Amino acid sequence: MTGDRRIYLDNAATTRPLPAVVEAMADTQLACFGNPSSAHSFGPPAKKALDDAREFLRGTLGAARIVFTSGGSEADQLGIVGSAAARAPGRVLMSQGDHPALLQCAGLLSRWRHHVTALPVTEHGDLLPETLFDALGTDVRVVALMYGHNELGTLCRLGDLVELVRRTAPAAHVHVDLVQTYGKLPFELDDVGVDSVAVSGHKFHGPRGAGFLALSSTAELKPLLLAGGQESGLRGGTENVAGAVGMAVAAEAALTHQSAHAAHMRQLCDLVLEQVLTAMPDAMRLGHPERHLPHILSLRLPGVVGQTLLERCDARGVAFSTGSACHTAADHAAADAHPGNPVLAAIGLDRRAAREVVRLSFCGTTTHAEADAAAHVLVEEALRLRELAPRGAGR
Amino acid sequence: MTGDRRIYLDNAATTRPLPAVVEAMADTQLACFGNPSSAHSFGPPAKKALDDAREFLRGTLGAARIVFTSGGSEADQLGIVGSAAARAPGRVLMSQGDHPALLQCAGLLSRWRHHVTALPVTEHGDLLPETLFDALGTDVRVVALMYGHNELGTLCRLGDLVELVRRTAPAAHVHVDLVQTYGKLPFELDDVGVDSVAVSGHKFHGPRGAGFLALSSTAELKPLLLAGGQESGLRGGTENVAGAVGMAVAAEAALTHQSAHAAHMRQLCDLVLEQVLTAMPDAMRLGHPERHLPHILSLRLPGVVGQTLLERCDARGVAFSTGSACHTAADHAAADAHPGNPVLAAIGLDRRAAREVVRLSFCGTTTHAEADAAAHVLVEEALRLRELAPRGAGR
Repeated sequence: MTGDRRIYLDNAATTRPLPAVVEAMADTQLACFGNPSSAHSFGPPAKKALDDAREFLRGTLGAARIVFTSGGSEADQLGIVGSAAARAPGRVLMSQGDHPALLQCAGLLSRWRHHVTALPVTEHGDLLPETLFDALGTDVRVVALMYGHNELGTLCRLGDLVELVRRTAPAAHVHVDLVQTYGKLPFELDDVGVDSVAVSGHKFHGPRGAGFLALSSTAELKPLLLAGGQESGLRGGTENVAGAVGMAVAAEAALTHQSAHAAHMRQLCDLVLEQVLTAMPDAMRLGHPERHLPHILSLRLPGVVGQTLLERCDARGVAFSTGSACHTAADHAAADAHPGNPVLAAIGLDRRAAREVVRLSFCGTTTHAEADAAAHVLVEEALRLRELAPRGAGR
Repeated sequence: MTGDRRIYLDNAATTRPLPAVVEAMADTQLACFGNPSSAHSFGPPAKKALDDAREFLRGTLGAARIVFTSGGSEADQLGIVGSAAARAPGRVLMSQGDHPALLQCAGLLSRWRHHVTALPVTEHGDLLPETLFDALGTDVRVVALMYGHNELGTLCRLGDLVELVRRTAPAAHVHVDLVQTYGKLPFELDDVGVDSVAVSGHKFHGPRGAGFLALSSTAELKPLLLAGGQESGLRGGTENVAGAVGMAVAAEAALTHQSAHAAHMRQLCDLVLEQVLTAMPDAMRLGHPERHLPHILSLRLPGVVGQTLLERCDARGVAFSTGSACHTAADHAAADAHPGNPVLAAIGLDRRAAREVVRLSFCGTTTHAEADAAAHVLVEEALRLRELAPRGAGR
């Protein structure tokens, strides 16, 4: 939007699609509108566009197969519930504070008589190998892991965790949520030996309503939506060709600039963190101190209510969030029993501390000037809010 | 595509999206890219675009609620399995020859200990009220009906069938597949007293990968994908705002021209049928002789292999199909046991007769000249194929 000077620092919630993505999707919609399954001449161009996108995306992860879905949540559910459905009843392991796209699979899993165990994490939102080890057993059918956490930014010790699973429950399916990580850090399925990963188009400047599940050659799963048997029988429904093409275009751009953008976003996180710590020495960065997604800066600002800070900064043209946009009404209803944001509860913050958290998330084209201006506004408003607070409050 | 003189008569498989739809989607992607759940200023424009589209679409059906899905197949599954999941184990009724988006729900339904009964239909693909009556009982939880059949074009006696359900199994949920009918014939949920209807964007010149389930005020269902609790807890995943906007634009266009286009498409069906019958008096129109979708002409041409006819006409620039693009590999694998296309088997055609069927499906802007030219090519090629056939074959 020309003339829009607002600074958007909520790229973990969603990203602005690249103009090239939007254009490629519009072109595909008009030029390849045929049904890929059609036997006449309108079918093959659509099928080719779909297959080309599939092949490109498959290659970006060294996957054996790609199953297109309507987004990251559906890809997570297919990876977790679909693989559990192909196995005998048993346990499914995930972590406390995982995205609801993972944790909310519990209801559906119970239909296949699987039981979810949500493992505790450290104050950094990190799943310790010993915690996983204690929970593992031959009755574990699926282990679901978030590689990069959407609120805290913590990267789990994926290699170590997967190795433990392979030693202790070799038949288990390892599913990885790659939604925040894809296009930001290198990842190959075989390098870590996982069975499936979930990707969401709109988290890397691609389309909304499009995602995919990438599978290893040995992954076994059953469809949750069979319908017309599309996607080799793993996900029915007429294929969203334009969505697949849009994801391929976005992925190509993301991977071309991946390491440069990652380094740049890490600098921006450091820049903002430094300004915040200079003005507010008691501020804290959440998440793991070393293993961290490049684009997410989660901060606790003691004495500052995050929601109020968000509103005041937003009024000055700086947009960020207090956490995920994806906590369900059920989460909030449960807040009486288990206070506040479930992610922050999982890392041991009490209700008051949890209210002091804000999340800034950058993209590869966020400028230094924008990060600097945002930090300035954030610090100014945070200090003002502290002054406004009644004596003794919030500390 | 400028210069493309091909004639597309497979609008039941998918339609060419309107340029206005593609444009509105591109604009929405760029101007309203925010996450509708975001609390900052990027959220509300996206939420408003989504809500406006929802409100418009809701109004077109007199529905109480709209749940956006990734397409018609998911909407059918949510209507059928979601409502069954909210009820005690029992029976779910559908019809033989229904679209796999309906019939393939059986697997998932079994996880809630529901059992599917697929009712026989007449030679016209019509579900007789007495057949439904015989199957009804208080253990029936869901009745799924296709209003307009995608291959045969038959419109079921919806009012009579729903009334029977209400009398005999008043607590049952009545789900209607409206995928081929929406935008072509008037429909209001309350007029017929149904609980949910499934709609697919790409069947009325809207977007691929977008559909919705429209619900009555009393419909009860459970989500199949909860994730972040979007769509009032009935369908999780970050909302595809552009897809919703695209559907609203397409729906407005379709409804504006609905009765004129329906009359026009009926004329085109008659025009082609007349030419075919003149040249081939033994040709037959499939489906119900009176109750019929306006845009679908399903023909059996004795002595002509539909697939070969399709290929020869396609080579001359006329595209149509031999049936649905949505038969699964499983369907075809089962063909040994129950020969051929399951829809045509359901109406009593044997394998040879089933191979003689082609489906032409028009849209509101198909011209008389196109229909005339298509009929000419079809007749010419069909007669040639008959000549080529060995004596005694195919008749």
